[in-house]
Amino acid sequence: MAVELKDLTKADDNYSQWYNELVVKAGLAENSAVRGCMVIKPYGYAIWEKMQAALDKMFKDTGHQNAYFPLFIPKSFFSREASHVEGFAKECAVVTHYRLKNDPEGNGVVVDPAARLEEELIVRPTSETIIWNTYKNWIQSYRDLPILCNQWANVVRWEMRTRLFLRTAEFLWQEGHTAHATREEAIEEAEKMIRVYQDFAENWMGVPVVVGHKSPNERFAGAEDTLTIEALMQDGKALQSGTSHFLGQNFAKAFDVQYVNKEGKLEYVWATSWGVSTRLMGALIMAHSDNNGLVLPPKLAPIQVVMVPIYKGEEQLQVMAERMNAIADELKAKGVSVKVDLRDNVRSGFKFAEYELKGVPVRLALGPRDMENGTIELARRDTLTKEVVPQEGLTERIVALLDEIQQNIFKKALDYRNSMITRVDTWEEFVEVLNTKGGFISAHWDGTPETEQAIKDATKATIRCIPIDAEPEEGKCIFTGKPSHCRVLFAKSY
Amino acid sequence: MAVELKDLTKADDNYSQWYNELVVKAGLAENSAVRGCMVIKPYGYAIWEKMQAALDKMFKDTGHQNAYFPLFIPKSFFSREASHVEGFAKECAVVTHYRLKNDPEGNGVVVDPAARLEEELIVRPTSETIIWNTYKNWIQSYRDLPILCNQWANVVRWEMRTRLFLRTAEFLWQEGHTAHATREEAIEEAEKMIRVYQDFAENWMGVPVVVGHKSPNERFAGAEDTLTIEALMQDGKALQSGTSHFLGQNFAKAFDVQYVNKEGKLEYVWATSWGVSTRLMGALIMAHSDNNGLVLPPKLAPIQVVMVPIYKGEEQLQVMAERMNAIADELKAKGVSVKVDLRDNVRSGFKFAEYELKGVPVRLALGPRDMENGTIELARRDTLTKEVVPQEGLTERIVALLDEIQQNIFKKALDYRNSMITRVDTWEEFVEVLNTKGGFISAHWDGTPETEQAIKDATKATIRCIPIDAEPEEGKCIFTGKPSHCRVLFAKSY
Repeated sequence: MAVELKDLTKADDNYSQWYNELVVKAGLAENSAVRGCMVIKPYGYAIWEKMQAALDKMFKDTGHQNAYFPLFIPKSFFSREASHVEGFAKECAVVTHYRLKNDPEGNGVVVDPAARLEEELIVRPTSETIIWNTYKNWIQSYRDLPILCNQWANVVRWEMRTRLFLRTAEFLWQEGHTAHATREEAIEEAEKMIRVYQDFAENWMGVPVVVGHKSPNERFAGAEDTLTIEALMQDGKALQSGTSHFLGQNFAKAFDVQYVNKEGKLEYVWATSWGVSTRLMGALIMAHSDNNGLVLPPKLAPIQVVMVPIYKGEEQLQVMAERMNAIADELKAKGVSVKVDLRDNVRSGFKFAEYELKGVPVRLALGPRDMENGTIELARRDTLTKEVVPQEGLTERIVALLDEIQQNIFKKALDYRNSMITRVDTWEEFVEVLNTKGGFISAHWDGTPETEQAIKDATKATIRCIPIDAEPEEGKCIFTGKPSHCRVLFAKSY
Repeated sequence: MAVELKDLTKADDNYSQWYNELVVKAGLAENSAVRGCMVIKPYGYAIWEKMQAALDKMFKDTGHQNAYFPLFIPKSFFSREASHVEGFAKECAVVTHYRLKNDPEGNGVVVDPAARLEEELIVRPTSETIIWNTYKNWIQSYRDLPILCNQWANVVRWEMRTRLFLRTAEFLWQEGHTAHATREEAIEEAEKMIRVYQDFAENWMGVPVVVGHKSPNERFAGAEDTLTIEALMQDGKALQSGTSHFLGQNFAKAFDVQYVNKEGKLEYVWATSWGVSTRLMGALIMAHSDNNGLVLPPKLAPIQVVMVPIYKGEEQLQVMAERMNAIADELKAKGVSVKVDLRDNVRSGFKFAEYELKGVPVRLALGPRDMENGTIELARRDTLTKEVVPQEGLTERIVALLDEIQQNIFKKALDYRNSMITRVDTWEEFVEVLNTKGGFISAHWDGTPETEQAIKDATKATIRCIPIDAEPEEGKCIFTGKPSHCRVLFAKSY
């Protein structure tokens, strides 16, 4: 299908519309016939697969194993953990029947009222309950601990307002669920995993993040502490991109999971859970892309280098194709993913626009003069610059360039993010910065949920996190003037 | 948790119970709190991941891309394709509501009657309908074809009698869905993919399969032709292990998917779909395992080599650990996955039994005499033989041995399978072979669904397939005596 780049809304004109259009036009995802559920298209899924592969390796390198738990959770499981049921069991997909039958009136099929489930099943919005119900059977002694499991799965939360990747009724994610003998070990695990997420966000996605604790208002339902990575999008809004929870003994108590410790005494098990989702795709898109389309970091780009011939006639195309395939083979041998686009039904200008839209990091164009001179035109997607370079040494140049682009994309995002953290000390400043500049606002807060809620009601800004490395600093809450001992980061968010 | 090998039922005593116990005791899977849904445990999931990786590469090497489509399908979609609705829309999980609320009577949460969906959603039992509804928007011209998509997903079929891996309400699978401009190309695709499955079953799982066409009775609901790979389990029952369907234009017509051909005329698109599932785990287990536990082909074994020290005292253990780690590092450098088991709370005999139960292909045991002599004891799981070999050249020996084991496992299964294909020409023979020897019975059939059904009613045997390479041969139907033009394979099956 034709790429209609000229129709892409400009990010400055309407960021939200630009995002929605970009996701669809770049072939990443689209809305499906089912309200709130998306179709992840092959190009988008190829990026997600690269994310999965990198994360999965990081999880395994830190000692985790994958497993798979049921899609359905008995309704009663949610009631076991008091705050969890408040947070999760409300907006969810409920399975009530297990059979359809032919409509006696001839209109297709209808639910068979005789096939009503005794207990309704909930399509998992998250799996703590079913997993802790399972762990009960896996854990008897301290020798069975720790359990370090992860699952890659789909989950469903019946969101009323949905947006591709950012908030969908069904989404794909991973959820780690670990069980530990001690409080300290569980806390260490939760911190280790948020650092894994930070590492991934920064070094793979090129997205700088602030690591911090959620305030109690924003904590996961059932957690004692929630750690988060918060990224900043180009429109100055924050995006929570991953969370890691210290769950204390809440789920162990709810599902009666105890172990015999080295001293022979029964104790409740300590838990963590942590997850990132296809929401990361939204972060990736909104952190780097521009009016020409996606900008993908080379490490996650399904196609790292595209090659386009500028030719006249079939004969010239043949000769160029041979040259380009030889270059491509050399690049592939170095682990670079390359596409040679020999389509003869679209012009090269169209191809250029298409691969810019798709965020391919490097474009090589080979023209008749290049064939004569042993050169090739090399264009960078991140800087939109191009230069003519010798074909000799091209592979080494590109391998180095991909690394440079990866770092440049991160640096650009980091510079922007750093320029968008504003320290304010008064309510007037706070409101002004929020409404003009946006971004993160570093400010004092009195530590109460009531104040956070009042600030949210007044401005829509929430506490994104209490940075994990926040320096102690005495100050006064910007809203109430009450004493505060450190600054927290506020922002409007997705 | 302790491995209770001594409690494993013998396969000869009760094959079905042996299987169920083995799946649980080897740590592959277990039943969950949700009827018919299993938990795939880390060791089982690690095997499934290896299957996925190998298959995924084969799909990509044949030009397919992954994508992701919604978990839910609107009920009305099923009614669009007449035979599909009969086959699939009946025993399924039906989502009728999207919210719970606190029980006014204080008993946890209840379904909120105000949150009833206008149209019920079915948890996908297979995705042809939602995918073809999506393809409608992706396909306008012949230039948009072929579409070669695959998805890795969970699906739900509300089976009444379930068995771990073999038949579960929820299972994991991949489903390929392709769209083509011509009938010939779609048929070629369906055949290509069943050959990919055959290649995987034989060369990765070590499970020989017969490739053939399903009889109309056993065809996929909505298909014009279903190709299958049929494996034989050690109890003489067949297991359908993968299917590839030529769907004709049925789904294109049901969802009005047409394209403009090169001549500018509108035509309906041709389709295939193909899938394998976690059922393959059942095939893998039942094709090779024995009374000592699993026998895994090296290519799919999460641990290919386990090393166990036979030692007295901490000091000896230290020295041995060093030696074993050095050997392990050399093996790992050659891509062999190795586990060094230094646990000091269980005896080596216990470890031996445990790794036999888990099907680890090669076990190395290092004792004090080996330390002196520069030798090591090498045991094969497939043959249960052991020998003392020099440490020198061990890596090369093991790399070669793993390959030999892979081939031996396949050969053993192949010899068994071949010995279990019996040609019969009379009904008496048919019944006798079925009731005594089991296995595949190659016999003449008159080609009618009525006869197949009658044979099934009389014996529980079904036509597993009409082998794709069946030689034409004139004969008489074993049941009706009517003329037949080739032999088909009957068997009792899972």
